Amino acid sequence: MSAHDSERYGELISKLRDVHLLESTSELLSWDQETMMPPAAVDHRANQLALLASLAHERATAKELGDLLESLPENMLDACQDANLREARRSFARSTRLDAKLVSEIAETSSRAQHAWAAARQDSDFAQFQPWLEKMVKLMQLKADCLYEDDMGCAWDALAEEFEPGMRAQNLANLFAPLRTDLCKLLDDIRGSSRQIESTVTKIKLPISSQENMVRAISEQMGFDFNRGRLDRSAHPFCGGSHYADVRITTRFSGDNFLDALGSTMHEAGHGLYEQGLLAEHLGTPMGTAVSLGIHESQSRLWENQVGRSEAFWLWCHAQLPKFFGEAFSDFTAPDLYAASNRAEASLIRVEADESTYNLHIMIRFDLEMALIAGDLSPEDLPSAWNEAYCEYLDVEVPDDRQGCLQDVHWSCGLFGYFPTYTLGNLYAAQFYDQACQELGDLPTSFQNGEFHSLKTWLNEKVHAQGMRYSAGDLCREVTGRSLDSQGLIRYLRRKLEPLYGIPSLGVDSSPGD
Amino acid sequence: MSAHDSERYGELISKLRDVHLLESTSELLSWDQETMMPPAAVDHRANQLALLASLAHERATAKELGDLLESLPENMLDACQDANLREARRSFARSTRLDAKLVSEIAETSSRAQHAWAAARQDSDFAQFQPWLEKMVKLMQLKADCLYEDDMGCAWDALAEEFEPGMRAQNLANLFAPLRTDLCKLLDDIRGSSRQIESTVTKIKLPISSQENMVRAISEQMGFDFNRGRLDRSAHPFCGGSHYADVRITTRFSGDNFLDALGSTMHEAGHGLYEQGLLAEHLGTPMGTAVSLGIHESQSRLWENQVGRSEAFWLWCHAQLPKFFGEAFSDFTAPDLYAASNRAEASLIRVEADESTYNLHIMIRFDLEMALIAGDLSPEDLPSAWNEAYCEYLDVEVPDDRQGCLQDVHWSCGLFGYFPTYTLGNLYAAQFYDQACQELGDLPTSFQNGEFHSLKTWLNEKVHAQGMRYSAGDLCREVTGRSLDSQGLIRYLRRKLEPLYGIPSLGVDSSPGD
Repeated sequence: MSAHDSERYGELISKLRDVHLLESTSELLSWDQETMMPPAAVDHRANQLALLASLAHERATAKELGDLLESLPENMLDACQDANLREARRSFARSTRLDAKLVSEIAETSSRAQHAWAAARQDSDFAQFQPWLEKMVKLMQLKADCLYEDDMGCAWDALAEEFEPGMRAQNLANLFAPLRTDLCKLLDDIRGSSRQIESTVTKIKLPISSQENMVRAISEQMGFDFNRGRLDRSAHPFCGGSHYADVRITTRFSGDNFLDALGSTMHEAGHGLYEQGLLAEHLGTPMGTAVSLGIHESQSRLWENQVGRSEAFWLWCHAQLPKFFGEAFSDFTAPDLYAASNRAEASLIRVEADESTYNLHIMIRFDLEMALIAGDLSPEDLPSAWNEAYCEYLDVEVPDDRQGCLQDVHWSCGLFGYFPTYTLGNLYAAQFYDQACQELGDLPTSFQNGEFHSLKTWLNEKVHAQGMRYSAGDLCREVTGRSLDSQGLIRYLRRKLEPLYGIPSLGVDSSPGD
Repeated sequence: MSAHDSERYGELISKLRDVHLLESTSELLSWDQETMMPPAAVDHRANQLALLASLAHERATAKELGDLLESLPENMLDACQDANLREARRSFARSTRLDAKLVSEIAETSSRAQHAWAAARQDSDFAQFQPWLEKMVKLMQLKADCLYEDDMGCAWDALAEEFEPGMRAQNLANLFAPLRTDLCKLLDDIRGSSRQIESTVTKIKLPISSQENMVRAISEQMGFDFNRGRLDRSAHPFCGGSHYADVRITTRFSGDNFLDALGSTMHEAGHGLYEQGLLAEHLGTPMGTAVSLGIHESQSRLWENQVGRSEAFWLWCHAQLPKFFGEAFSDFTAPDLYAASNRAEASLIRVEADESTYNLHIMIRFDLEMALIAGDLSPEDLPSAWNEAYCEYLDVEVPDDRQGCLQDVHWSCGLFGYFPTYTLGNLYAAQFYDQACQELGDLPTSFQNGEFHSLKTWLNEKVHAQGMRYSAGDLCREVTGRSLDSQGLIRYLRRKLEPLYGIPSLGVDSSPGD
């Protein structure tokens, strides 16, 4: 690269970092809104977020940035610089397709709609939320119009591109069809089993403060760095904050099911480890940014499930419980807790769903949001469509909207095209974890000793430090040597649930590498 | 006002509100930095604050704003509009005198210097902070050069104008000279008294959580609205947040002196009531902004001292204590607590100082910061100058920098010209409270019954709702019928401390209105 190009590349990085400063400020304000903000401040916060979004958009679409991006040569840089330039161009092209007014309107509406959603959910009253959903769907359709590209198959693709670059509805449909068949077969096997898993362990009343101490200790044990992060409470757990040195995870507690707080926290701490594992030197650039939400979710699900719902983890964790809860669990063995944390049952609430049914919840949302964006489903018909889908996919009756279509925050914030990344995360997690086991040897024995460092370090190196160097699909091939498929997840679930439920083995018990 | 003027006035308000959105975002980030932010995020936060400061400055000095301000007619508007226009012009004139680079450098340096100060204070090591103080003093001198106006007497005046518009060092010197004489005489009388006030009540170990519940309840009783505010902990208590519907006060707790947390909280809640009392309709404009820091401080000090250190308050509060602390105070009567909360003694720490000595701490800082800004005192000589002044004013030896010149955060954030507003606040508080007693009748009997509503409402109407309609001095004349003087404070202190210390009355016991 010539000295002149190098100087212009430096200018590019500095401009990208300015945009990131504004975006990270918005993220902080959003975190604050969910955790700290007094209720009456909601209007002003919406105005602040709208202004910041429009300032960031202004900078992300500035002509000088476009000129810089055009003037820099292709393929004359190192791999990191190549990736930064490629992604900055992609992002600039998308941003310039959106007009500032729409960006600011979406930001402002999200903030207000989210509060309307929270109130509607509390009252279990979809009617309160409906006008906001209508407004949001319309805004998303406008957004999709702006962002649609020739290689896309439908408007939804244009929205999903933001969360999972390169992923299309058609690819997902192809991935989801066999997965649905296999999951339904597994669910039938479980329903047909005569063995039941006891749930009494999830009905022990425990002080919230003890639960909080416990999940904080577990996050630290996973390697979450509290010098560069926080753990707080919010209605809907999330990982927010703004950069590798300020990562804010939240969780929620129920008085009598500590597995809820434990799972949420390990999940969010998994996201947090990804954010903390991004490299400082790449702050504010694509190389210092998570590659996709599917990969992000793979990190949270891997810690929540492959680690936190493993037999080895429970052998260790069971021994830690008296430190936090005294005698409360003295009637339960480690295998009891392992089994309870893997209880499989069709249910109503996605975030409480077990691993065997979780992805069916996602497929429902995928179908419904595709229909909303395509205009095939009117927002007012959402509750009935939702309830029908739950009958069809999971064979459960939805008693009210709180436990139905008001359970998730996503659509209120304009997150359409987002839900499928949860299932992608589950698929990536299974495939990454298989590979980690092959490379790192006996991980379960480490977990039994409370040692999670080798896994964390492996993920740091293989996934986190890569930023956006590869696309999500390429990263998967780089790390595991294979393209993403649904077989890894099914194999992992059967290997765990067949013995727990006394189901005769389907014989999917060997990984492809064995 | 013509339709055209009216439209332009509307444009003006909208531009002022945009600046306020950015400023209020900075305030939120500063609050977060002191209460929530993980330690490692300090660099990024400094960059965020610097960018926001420069964006706000850009807007506050935009040519279109200047043109609008010039084009609007004088005296063709109502009183609110007049005040908004007058103050917007004043503020525009000041802002345009500062260059953007200096503004951003000050913002960034403040954020870093504040962290350096916190570390230096913890280690009681001035040397760590000295380079930052030097940097900050230089930046302040540059700032004063930009802001100096013809009617000012010295560089310090140019800085103080930001906090107490219209107040000059010379006015303060005139106000402080008799005050110093009277306070020293009072302190001599106290030192000469044979009566001692017991301090054992401030040495009872109390759980922090109980103290927190108590101060939260007291804030609510005062009328602080938690729907529009929060109470958290920080190293140095402050009132932050950003607008009437998001007011964030902080306090701190020590395990064995609950009067510390109580006083801090009532103080900050007093500030908080002012912010919550600004009118929603004037959000983001001068009419919705506190008039000066001296007036702001009058609100905090009035609640902390005139209310919270009164005999009547303690008659009520004493009866509340068992709810929070069980039997811990059963050996103490209400008069014991009243006396303990008014124990007068020359001491080292400003924020712990009693009412009779507090203003002497301020005079020390006033002298020293005048000298620093004038270049008559070099930052490296600050510790020795500080220690000498404490001998001279208060006759106490400073054992280390933590208890000396590192005790206050202000200079680290570039708050020069700020300290005297504390004493102005004490003077205004005494004068306002005198007036409230004359207008509202028997306030002490209300306090005895835990009734603070009439006082809060009076302050809401007389002070808070006025925004910047009047200058601070004019507001004082509007509310009390008199210009500010130091006699009201001395009268109030003697009336309280003479009987507590058994000092023969100096005969200053009647208010001018009696």
